[in-house]
Amino acid sequence: MMNFSLPFIPERENPPRETGLTSVMDKGLSLRQAEDLFSVAGHLIDIVKIGFGTSIVSGQLKEKISFYHKNKVKLYFGGTLFEAFLLRGMKDDYKRYLDTFQMEMLEISDGSMHMEHYEKCRLIEEFSRDYRVISEVGSKNAKVVYTEEMWVEQMRTELEAGAWKVIAEARESGTVGIYDHHGKANKHLIDTISHTIDVSNIVWEAPIKSQQVWFIKAFGPNVNLGNIAPSEVIPLETLRLGLRGDTFLDFIPEVIHLNNK
Amino acid sequence: MMNFSLPFIPERENPPRETGLTSVMDKGLSLRQAEDLFSVAGHLIDIVKIGFGTSIVSGQLKEKISFYHKNKVKLYFGGTLFEAFLLRGMKDDYKRYLDTFQMEMLEISDGSMHMEHYEKCRLIEEFSRDYRVISEVGSKNAKVVYTEEMWVEQMRTELEAGAWKVIAEARESGTVGIYDHHGKANKHLIDTISHTIDVSNIVWEAPIKSQQVWFIKAFGPNVNLGNIAPSEVIPLETLRLGLRGDTFLDFIPEVIHLNNK
Amino acid sequence: MMNFSLPFIPERENPPRETGLTSVMDKGLSLRQAEDLFSVAGHLIDIVKIGFGTSIVSGQLKEKISFYHKNKVKLYFGGTLFEAFLLRGMKDDYKRYLDTFQMEMLEISDGSMHMEHYEKCRLIEEFSRDYRVISEVGSKNAKVVYTEEMWVEQMRTELEAGAWKVIAEARESGTVGIYDHHGKANKHLIDTISHTIDVSNIVWEAPIKSQQVWFIKAFGPNVNLGNIAPSEVIPLETLRLGLRGDTFLDFIPEVIHLNNK
Repeated sequence: MMNFSLPFIPERENPPRETGLTSVMDKGLSLRQAEDLFSVAGHLIDIVKIGFGTSIVSGQLKEKISFYHKNKVKLYFGGTLFEAFLLRGMKDDYKRYLDTFQMEMLEISDGSMHMEHYEKCRLIEEFSRDYRVISEVGSKNAKVVYTEEMWVEQMRTELEAGAWKVIAEARESGTVGIYDHHGKANKHLIDTISHTIDVSNIVWEAPIKSQQVWFIKAFGPNVNLGNIAPSEVIPLETLRLGLRGDTFLDFIPEVIHLNNK
Repeated sequence: MMNFSLPFIPERENPPRETGLTSVMDKGLSLRQAEDLFSVAGHLIDIVKIGFGTSIVSGQLKEKISFYHKNKVKLYFGGTLFEAFLLRGMKDDYKRYLDTFQMEMLEISDGSMHMEHYEKCRLIEEFSRDYRVISEVGSKNAKVVYTEEMWVEQMRTELEAGAWKVIAEARESGTVGIYDHHGKANKHLIDTISHTIDVSNIVWEAPIKSQQVWFIKAFGPNVNLGNIAPSEVIPLETLRLGLRGDTFLDFIPEVIHLNNK
Repeated sequence: MMNFSLPFIPERENPPRETGLTSVMDKGLSLRQAEDLFSVAGHLIDIVKIGFGTSIVSGQLKEKISFYHKNKVKLYFGGTLFEAFLLRGMKDDYKRYLDTFQMEMLEISDGSMHMEHYEKCRLIEEFSRDYRVISEVGSKNAKVVYTEEMWVEQMRTELEAGAWKVIAEARESGTVGIYDHHGKANKHLIDTISHTIDVSNIVWEAPIKSQQVWFIKAFGPNVNLGNIAPSEVIPLETLRLGLRGDTFLDFIPEVIHLNNK
């Protein structure tokens, strides 16, 4: 849906799509706020994450989940909640929790607790029989640093184990994992990852505008981006389309661009 | 209200409670936005502050106040407004203002103007006969620095004068008072305060996530925290309960924790 | 509209007004969110900008525009969108776009593309025959730096060409144009501008609170400020009125002020 058709605007598929995904972080929207978001930007949203353990303490959860499902968005609870159940030896209770709320998707992560990687892959395999699994690589703890080889190897094996997509960790703050503590992208690491893993299978967490711009310039308008704040969904789409200053000239043929130098 | 019951989650009382308070900063919510907040997080909110002088210029004020009162939340106007009346010699007009809006609580502060401390205590005494008083210690001006002895002495005497709780100043930005200008907690000052004053009588202003984490680690999940943005009420509750990365392992018995090292 | 009348509060006209303007940045509000904003702060808002290219991809656009027009606010699409049409040689299509949505105002800018300045003035002249034109001076690219003479000269000639007001660029981030990359105001530049150009004809983009405070202290409570986030409209008004800590003593006669030193 575009309110006017302009030339030299990158092609974007409509959801449901397999690439060019925008994944939104819901950390406590009310039902009405979710409706508000979808009334203006529903056509731009592929995935909603009900962040970390917020689903446990939020009112209106059932109503909100039902609204999201009715709107055909892929929906899951943040991986930290999965880890909270697992740490307590309550894997089956987590399945019950998912089923109570008719969740068809979950995140499997090890950002807050230690897990042997073969065990993580086993869990991905197990859950992917009954659910869509999105898995996440990278620690929330800035002190836990993986080598580039570990990033690639973990992503590769988690996809092989059955993960639909794999998320590259950055937190809501955008300051760990693929970024330094100022939020600057680790170019060498991201290059290495993208040379081995099909980029369409990765969702890069990019909560900060400069990070969104960086990934769009590196991988094009249809890169998958996650941890997008609800109020940033529409601004992000304008970045993807070259309709904001930061990417204004990125998708324009040189001949037009040069005329305006 | 929890959507699922997990073990090793800190005990939290339901409001009305005297400790573990979450105090929200409303700096201009509409009635509908207040309703949205309470539909998902009303059971987590103890206090709402209608910040600084915003009540003077906001539409829908009467309706919003009536909504908050109906929801049994403790409600007050920011102390800067009290100071604005006082500076103009209009103390009785402030009482009229409070009564017009059926406010049962007020903040007495001296963050923006000079006041002799015995005079502040006298005002606390006077107002606490007819209203619930919350008083605030600390200047909004980063150049006005109190000694640790002054912090303790002021808090002690204000509570004795009749204040229900005393607030430790940090502003909406979280960069003055008990924090340095980067927002980092002044550990020595806070230690000194908490050795003399009963922590359950203090509301620590902690608008930034790292500050909330710091206080929860220092004083436990039931520490009183203020200047919480509406959108951060639910995320804060997950920090209190160990359902977010930052405090994920803080409330877990060592034996379980070690199994996952 | 004030909920209580206090002395020593700066005089503010009601909209429609020609000075003391507050211009809001809407980067994707839903119709209901716009209604919420106006229910509490409609009387404080003069201008709404539907930022950069967001109008192209937003749902509910027609309904929201009609709501804004019904509320008598001056409304325009961000200048980046004008530039996106112009770069593609589609000036007349932009007029069609404006007319489809019954827009009576537009922004003419050259923040994202190069344009000869006489050509920009010619466009201002042309469009101002049929529309209210707001023009913008300053590049979104931090590397493009104008001399102070260029700032003054461009503002002067754009107003002469027919611009209703001229905007001093800062972006949504507040870190270019009239500010350094930390967001600190370029005092010398702003002084120079204000000595030649009538300040009532300038809208200073000031998204950050410290910037709003700076301009209110420099030019008084009725300075025109732009790129104000919806949630900051009411807090900004309290800054203009001396009802927030930062400007608390700015409009108070010395005799009262000194009594409280």
